[in-house]
Amino acid sequence: MMITSLANPRIKYIRKLSERKFREQQGEYYIEGLRIVGEALEQNAELVTLLNAPDLLTSEFGQNLVGQAREKGMEVLDLSPEVFAKLSLKEGPQGIAAVGRQSFTPISSLVPGEKDLWIALDSVQDPGNLGTILRTGDAAGCRGVILLDHSTDPYDPTALRASMGAVFNLKIIKARLNEFSHWKEKTAIEVVGTSDKALIYYRDYYYPIPMVLLMGSEKTGLAPDHLRICDEVVSIPMLGKSDSLNLAVATGIVLYEIVHQSRMKTD
Amino acid sequence: MMITSLANPRIKYIRKLSERKFREQQGEYYIEGLRIVGEALEQNAELVTLLNAPDLLTSEFGQNLVGQAREKGMEVLDLSPEVFAKLSLKEGPQGIAAVGRQSFTPISSLVPGEKDLWIALDSVQDPGNLGTILRTGDAAGCRGVILLDHSTDPYDPTALRASMGAVFNLKIIKARLNEFSHWKEKTAIEVVGTSDKALIYYRDYYYPIPMVLLMGSEKTGLAPDHLRICDEVVSIPMLGKSDSLNLAVATGIVLYEIVHQSRMKTD
Repeated sequence: MMITSLANPRIKYIRKLSERKFREQQGEYYIEGLRIVGEALEQNAELVTLLNAPDLLTSEFGQNLVGQAREKGMEVLDLSPEVFAKLSLKEGPQGIAAVGRQSFTPISSLVPGEKDLWIALDSVQDPGNLGTILRTGDAAGCRGVILLDHSTDPYDPTALRASMGAVFNLKIIKARLNEFSHWKEKTAIEVVGTSDKALIYYRDYYYPIPMVLLMGSEKTGLAPDHLRICDEVVSIPMLGKSDSLNLAVATGIVLYEIVHQSRMKTD
Repeated sequence: MMITSLANPRIKYIRKLSERKFREQQGEYYIEGLRIVGEALEQNAELVTLLNAPDLLTSEFGQNLVGQAREKGMEVLDLSPEVFAKLSLKEGPQGIAAVGRQSFTPISSLVPGEKDLWIALDSVQDPGNLGTILRTGDAAGCRGVILLDHSTDPYDPTALRASMGAVFNLKIIKARLNEFSHWKEKTAIEVVGTSDKALIYYRDYYYPIPMVLLMGSEKTGLAPDHLRICDEVVSIPMLGKSDSLNLAVATGIVLYEIVHQSRMKTD
């Protein structure tokens, strides 16, 4: 049966997932579009509902995704194009979306593997930046991202879009600073921070493995109580008039130095 | 005299600067907020009008900027808070904005300096990405950015915001591919591209100076006719499930390798 009314309780529920508070209460999120739904299915993300607007979903690839969802025993809702368009966050909706369960790993259960590289972010504010950092972290072979204190939501639609599916491949942890600090003590993992005030050029440091790269917030960088946790703090040189880099770009530059060093070790 | 009506012709003109076509016809742009207006003034960007809403602009720093603009002989318009709020692209408008003249350098007049590093972008689509690349390029000491073919507008409000003032410090060039190719022949400058299909690891290449780093578009990378122009093409390894990096992050990673090599030469 096709859902043709916005008053349908499932539709009302899904629309409310655009609110961070509701997403967190329910532990669910909304994704939309062929690419990201395809990635979620491929990477076995825990999806609970697939939304299908047959009149909009004309590609074979899309129809295959609906087939896969049915095979996996997922709830599949058929929507009229009008209802789908109202749910949609995109121009030119593709007629496929899904509701997934959020997946957070408790830091207390986290055992770093021998070759693990982790990113920790202090109070990242911009969902686009967070999504781009997830994408970069995945490309650099990180295990996951630890979100400290008041970070934006990795399941925000903008973060999900920017992450390009990396959110399904990385472990995501939310932790308060003291929990992170306790975990660092317990596991003896090294934490390296970045700061424009640090004296060590980021290329001159020999990064240990496993390790955590700790990045500060967009506006203020690493706060003193976060710097105190770091075993070392490195800096990226600024050669122009700009006094800082975008957070995701800075994360990428240091991560790829760590990746390079670890390639050199194994070669 | 304070402008209190949206029907004022200057206000109507400024509102129309939100449209790319109108911006390009007029060769002007709109910036807003203490930080970017301050940077534009500091870097002697060619501003034509400063907009001041005295009831909103309470900070001393802001009032000093208005004073500087008057000293420079700039047109200063006083706006009621209601009119300013209608112009504003921000939540919580700070009461200061400006209209500036776009500055594009013709590629025909461009003479690369001995130590110049340039970025060329093929059809970059996202204004946020373009702004972030400008910011990254400035931090890495680049001279400027060459926008090939159908690129988004560096004077788009999102691009300006993401550039964090770098747009005022870099030379910006718009060129068609054949003009760029001709300029490369004439100046004998080396062009290095990036592609996920390239066999050369970006750390294994010795980058010449001066040079141009050529980056492809977000979705399709470098097109064959752009690849053909490159003296060499390098790749960034992907270690996770992500098959690509965000364009600005990828640009930052390669730029900072070039910066590192050039530091090593001069040290």
